[in-house]
Amino acid sequence: MRIVGIVAAGTLAIATHTAAAPDEAVSYPADYRQWAHVKSTLVGPQNPGFATNGGLHHFYANAKGMEGYRTGTFPDGAVLIDDLVELKDAATPGVSDEGARRRLAVMVKDSRKFGDTGGWGFEVFKGDTQAAALDVKARAACFACHQKAANAVFSQLRK
Amino acid sequence: MRIVGIVAAGTLAIATHTAAAPDEAVSYPADYRQWAHVKSTLVGPQNPGFATNGGLHHFYANAKGMEGYRTGTFPDGAVLIDDLVELKDAATPGVSDEGARRRLAVMVKDSRKFGDTGGWGFEVFKGDTQAAALDVKARAACFACHQKAANAVFSQLRK
Repeated sequence: MRIVGIVAAGTLAIATHTAAAPDEAVSYPADYRQWAHVKSTLVGPQNPGFATNGGLHHFYANAKGMEGYRTGTFPDGAVLIDDLVELKDAATPGVSDEGARRRLAVMVKDSRKFGDTGGWGFEVFKGDTQAAALDVKARAACFACHQKAANAVFSQLRK
Repeated sequence: MRIVGIVAAGTLAIATHTAAAPDEAVSYPADYRQWAHVKSTLVGPQNPGFATNGGLHHFYANAKGMEGYRTGTFPDGAVLIDDLVELKDAATPGVSDEGARRRLAVMVKDSRKFGDTGGWGFEVFKGDTQAAALDVKARAACFACHQKAANAVFSQLRK
């Protein structure tokens, strides 16, 4: 039984490696602004990575993503969003409003399609574009960091 | 025709004034964390009202509320939320995480029930409580300020 299991896993890995690039694409989540809001994180000017990562990060999840946050297990079909927008000074002193979108980062759970990276596919859309920005190396870097977290997900649902 | 209209409006006003207090209550929106996220606003320490209003304001809307943001007309049944949470320093320099909820402010559109205040009912729930915190005078103060905005709604939907 154990040998059969290893063979099956090897077959799956080969199938994933030989899949055409379009099959591994993460599509733009057109309706994510209707999804539930998971939490937000503010990255301010004091952060060393402010130039590339500064602003207000809003995390969103579709219904299967929310199921994952609640149960601890993200089912296939779960989609998680990190929507990064700039903050700009409002007319009222001390008040900051949301400005332009810097980028939209997306994680999609599909155990078969993304078997090489913990079942998660990663993509980034810059600004308000809907064109995928990552190459294979960049996607691998996403997973290299995300695999440090349980289920590869860093964020937790705010009550 | 014009006189009939005035009489009808007067009748409606009387009916609203004589309604029992429970009928004018705005109930706690139990499922609002599943609703769409309209926008967020940061009120920082430089703001004169920081002590009472500081933190990260997340605005949410139910489906009818979202219809209102999109069309400019909020139908009866629209519910809008201002969820105010504290910001606290995270372990990473320059990063702020959401902390405790300070209060949940709710607007409900019901043209009949809240005819005296532009069709909107107002309520506040302090911290994580689900007990209404406003008296009649405080609700009137909500409307006194909100009526300065078109449709009594200050927030606008972020794209």
